[in-house]
Amino acid sequence: MKTLIVYAHPEPRSLNGSLKDLAVSTLEAAGHEVRISDLYAMNWKSVVDAADYGPDASNPLKVALDSGRAFDAGTLTPDVRAEQDKLLWADMIIFQFPLWWYAMPAILKGWVDRVFTYHFAYGVGEHSDTRYGERFGEGTLAGRRALLSVTVGGLESHYAPRGINGPIDDLLFPIQHGILYYPGIDVLPPFVLYGTDRTTAEDYPHIAAAWRQRLLTLESTEPIAFRRQNFGDYEIPSLHLKRGLEPVGRTGFGLHVYD
Amino acid sequence: MKTLIVYAHPEPRSLNGSLKDLAVSTLEAAGHEVRISDLYAMNWKSVVDAADYGPDASNPLKVALDSGRAFDAGTLTPDVRAEQDKLLWADMIIFQFPLWWYAMPAILKGWVDRVFTYHFAYGVGEHSDTRYGERFGEGTLAGRRALLSVTVGGLESHYAPRGINGPIDDLLFPIQHGILYYPGIDVLPPFVLYGTDRTTAEDYPHIAAAWRQRLLTLESTEPIAFRRQNFGDYEIPSLHLKRGLEPVGRTGFGLHVYD
Repeated sequence: MKTLIVYAHPEPRSLNGSLKDLAVSTLEAAGHEVRISDLYAMNWKSVVDAADYGPDASNPLKVALDSGRAFDAGTLTPDVRAEQDKLLWADMIIFQFPLWWYAMPAILKGWVDRVFTYHFAYGVGEHSDTRYGERFGEGTLAGRRALLSVTVGGLESHYAPRGINGPIDDLLFPIQHGILYYPGIDVLPPFVLYGTDRTTAEDYPHIAAAWRQRLLTLESTEPIAFRRQNFGDYEIPSLHLKRGLEPVGRTGFGLHVYD
Repeated sequence: MKTLIVYAHPEPRSLNGSLKDLAVSTLEAAGHEVRISDLYAMNWKSVVDAADYGPDASNPLKVALDSGRAFDAGTLTPDVRAEQDKLLWADMIIFQFPLWWYAMPAILKGWVDRVFTYHFAYGVGEHSDTRYGERFGEGTLAGRRALLSVTVGGLESHYAPRGINGPIDDLLFPIQHGILYYPGIDVLPPFVLYGTDRTTAEDYPHIAAAWRQRLLTLESTEPIAFRRQNFGDYEIPSLHLKRGLEPVGRTGFGLHVYD
């Protein structure tokens, strides 16, 4: 298994740093190849601007069109092309990050904004009466798997179905479905640690054992069963889920997961 | 009314740029004071790191604790202090940005990550048997209002209750509830433009008229009725919504909005 770890934390000696290191050692010991995108160490440029598209930037700038033109021409910046190449190389992509304000840290969002260009991650495939592009189950990155490994400062109960922050599955849906499943990646259930503002050295062996267990079972873990776009569940082009496919009473993001 | 506009787009001649300019001219013509945080023009640093906390950074870095210590000591960097001062000055905060990958652009997320420090935006107020800090309806920024003005490339139907992307209210919940309501800001219903990848010059007068209408009625618009945390609706400390408060069958993020 070829694994890419995309890691976003400013402190190497943080819990996130330890989990990243443990992933590397565990996977390599099990015979897997591992590459790392350590975004802070790389001083990753997190902001989309005209410099990303070089000679293919139009004036005024058009982010989607220009990124697609630069992708097609092979003139995206070397840092972005290197990340696209890593994604194409990988079978498995692990994202290791803290949940800050219910979302990715800016540096990781900037990795998505810059690497997931038009014609690479979106704007792929034909649009017709039966297909609305290759996305949500198809796309450039189909055949790959991903896993979010996330640390959360707050308590688990606050992220429960009735918890004040909202259910963790819903908070992660825009990442797991909107960013990863969109270009075709199958997404495994996340590894989420709660209450990490209060985690102590005594807790770490239990955390490490749980993480190691997940890492050693990546290949046998079933992905989240998101519905595929072009295989009959959705009206085209409205992309409304057809009536009656969901369990009675289910609404919201959960509509887009098979039972 | 004192209005802060936080604006995140790399191209001044974009639709986002035009909407920002129109907000400034409309509000000033109506007698309001306006300040702008044009994040790209400011070359806003979007990445949290030890440099944010100067002499108050610990080693290893502890983002929450260090940011709170630097906030208390008044030693946060001048760029962050200036944004906190603008938030305290404002009655109304407008966020103008494109939805990229179902979330804020990285530069705007980095504004949140760096400006919403511990002791300023979270970790405020006492924790007891009846209160779990001042948040979700109370907090440093209580008494202020905010509005998201968001451009979306895709079609509106894809963001409908049965749309494949998920309902727009749910996609914006982590921002509107998780980021803005958390430190006490009341949030007005968002101004969302869809299909903006295909917007033409002919569409603009209609868009501008709708936006002007929203801008001139900010003071009379009712905020989203998010539930307040410390006023009897939630169990403490689990912060589960108490049984039976919601309409039958409602689940997910919608639990946290009054009828």
